[in-house]
Amino acid sequence: MTEQRILRGLLVPTVTPFNEDLSVDVGRFEVICRWQLANGANGLAVFGTTSEGNSLSVKERRDLLDHLVQAGVSADRLMPGCGACALPDAVEMTRHAVRTGAGGVLVLPPFYYPDPDEEAVFRFYAELIERVGEDRLRLYVYHIPHMTRVRMGPVLLRRLVEAYPASVVGLKDSSGDWEATRRLIEEVPELAVFPGAETFVSRGLAIGAAGCISATANIQPGAIADVIAAHGTPEAPPLQEAVDRVRATVASFPMIPAIKAILARETADGAWERLRPPLAALEAAQRQALFDALDTLPDYRRPELASLGVAA
Amino acid sequence: MTEQRILRGLLVPTVTPFNEDLSVDVGRFEVICRWQLANGANGLAVFGTTSEGNSLSVKERRDLLDHLVQAGVSADRLMPGCGACALPDAVEMTRHAVRTGAGGVLVLPPFYYPDPDEEAVFRFYAELIERVGEDRLRLYVYHIPHMTRVRMGPVLLRRLVEAYPASVVGLKDSSGDWEATRRLIEEVPELAVFPGAETFVSRGLAIGAAGCISATANIQPGAIADVIAAHGTPEAPPLQEAVDRVRATVASFPMIPAIKAILARETADGAWERLRPPLAALEAAQRQALFDALDTLPDYRRPELASLGVAA
Repeated sequence: MTEQRILRGLLVPTVTPFNEDLSVDVGRFEVICRWQLANGANGLAVFGTTSEGNSLSVKERRDLLDHLVQAGVSADRLMPGCGACALPDAVEMTRHAVRTGAGGVLVLPPFYYPDPDEEAVFRFYAELIERVGEDRLRLYVYHIPHMTRVRMGPVLLRRLVEAYPASVVGLKDSSGDWEATRRLIEEVPELAVFPGAETFVSRGLAIGAAGCISATANIQPGAIADVIAAHGTPEAPPLQEAVDRVRATVASFPMIPAIKAILARETADGAWERLRPPLAALEAAQRQALFDALDTLPDYRRPELASLGVAA
Repeated sequence: MTEQRILRGLLVPTVTPFNEDLSVDVGRFEVICRWQLANGANGLAVFGTTSEGNSLSVKERRDLLDHLVQAGVSADRLMPGCGACALPDAVEMTRHAVRTGAGGVLVLPPFYYPDPDEEAVFRFYAELIERVGEDRLRLYVYHIPHMTRVRMGPVLLRRLVEAYPASVVGLKDSSGDWEATRRLIEEVPELAVFPGAETFVSRGLAIGAAGCISATANIQPGAIADVIAAHGTPEAPPLQEAVDRVRATVASFPMIPAIKAILARETADGAWERLRPPLAALEAAQRQALFDALDTLPDYRRPELASLGVAA
C-alpha cells in the first residue's frame, strides 16, 4: 500500500555549503542538490553526517528544507536528517519534514550519553513517532555507532517495526560492518536498508537492500548509479571496483573536508571548502595529496561540475 | 577587576525534573534549585550532563533560565550549560545567558564528530566568543571527554586564555583523571578550575582549584560544602572520605537515574524519577540495592528533602 512511497537506489547525503560568515549558503546548496539529482541520485539524504547536519540548528534545517521544496525540488525525493539529542527538537524537525511532504526522515538516536540501554533507545523512537502523530511518517533509523556510540541490532529494530509497522520503514546502516548489515537485511526484511557506503551496494542489492547512502555519492553519483543499474550483469563488478577505489582514496583523508575540497576543485570555487567547526578544511599539502591520488586512479571519473562554478 | 564575578566553591549541576508528558517541570526545578542554594551550594551549573542539559531544546533552556531569574534566584550564582553541536545554538544560548546576568556559562565543545583537531576546537570557541560579542561573557570550558570524545589539554586552554583573557575564565574538568586536572590547574593558573567530582576537591583546593561541580552535589550539597569549609583543617580528611563513600556508592549505579531515585525517596515524590530518553529510571531492584548500600554507609547524611515533597 505504501510501497510506492519507499525511497530506493542512490541517496546522497548532500554536503552543506557555507557563506564566508558560516551561515548556510542557500544558493549553492540548491545548485548542488539539483546537480546530484540530475546526475544519478534517486534522492537526497540532506542533513546527514556528511552534510554537517548536527552543526545546523533546528531552524536552519527547517528553513533549508523549505527552500529546496519551494525551489521545486520534489519533496518525495528527500530524506532529511531529523535526529537530535533533545526529543522536542527531533519531534519539531520530523513533524515539519513530514508536513513538507518529505519522502522519509532519517533519525539518529540521541548521541550525547554513550551506550544507552536498548529500552531507552526504543522509547526515544516511540515517543518521537507518537508525538509527531502523522500517518504519513516514513522513518529511517540511522545506525552510525562510531559517531553516536549507540548500537542498534535486529532485536531493537524488529521491536520498532512491530510496534510501528507503518512508520518505521527503513534503516541507514553506517556500521561499516558488512556482517552486521547483512544480518539486519536478512533478519528484519520489512526494512528498506541502505548501507552507509557504496562499498556494500552490490552485496546489499543481492540480498534485498534498498540501495545505498554514501558520502562519496557527493562526487561520484553517476558512477554509483551505474553500479546499481548494472546490478546482476557482468558489467557490475568492475564498476563496483572503480567506485570502491575512489572511496578508499577519499576515505584515507578526513572524509567530509576531502569531499568539499573535490567540489571546490571541480567548480573552481573555493567557497565549497568552508566547514563549520569542529570540522576544518584540508591543509594545502593534504589537498594536493588527495588530488594526486585520485588523478592516478585508472578509471576515476571527475565529476562534471564546471558549470556550477563561481557564477552559479 | 573581574575577580569578584568569578564563581567559586560548590556548584551543583542541578537535575531537571519532568512532568508526566516529559515536559520540563518548572515548579519542581525552582524548588530544588532553592533547596540546593540554601543547603551548601554556592551556585548552580544548570543544564549540565547530570541535568540532561543536551536533552533540552534551546528554547527550553532559555525559558527555564528566565524562569529561575524571574523567580528571584540570583543570576550571578548561575552557570548554565550553553554548549551545542551547532554553533548558532551555542551562540544563542550563551548570548541569552549573558544578557540574563548569568555569573558564567559552561560550554561543551561540539560533540558529534569524535576527536576533532585542536585547531577546530579552538575555532569553535573563538567563533562563539566573537559572535556573542559581550564584554560580560565569563566562559567556562567544559572538558568531559568520556561524553564528547574531545580532549582538551593545557596547550589549547592556554591558547584560548591568551586570545580571550577577559572571556575564558574557567574550566570544568570532568576527565576523572587527577593527574590531568592537576596539570591544568598548574599550567593554566589563569583558569578557575572546577574538578567534575568532589573526589578531587581537597586536592584541588590545595593547589588553587576554584571548587568543584559534582553530580552528587544534588544529594549531598551540605556535606561537600563542609569539606570545602574545613579545607586545611584536621576535620577535612574524614569529611572528604565520607563524601567519597557516597559518591562511590552512587557511581556504582547509573549515576543520573540514581540521583533522581534518591530525590524521589527523600521527597516521597516519584515524579523525580522521570528522565528523558535515552536515560531511563532505575529498575526496582537496582533502586533498592542503591538505597541499601547508602543506608549502610556509617556516616551517610540523608538529604533533608521531606519538606519539598509532593505538595511543593
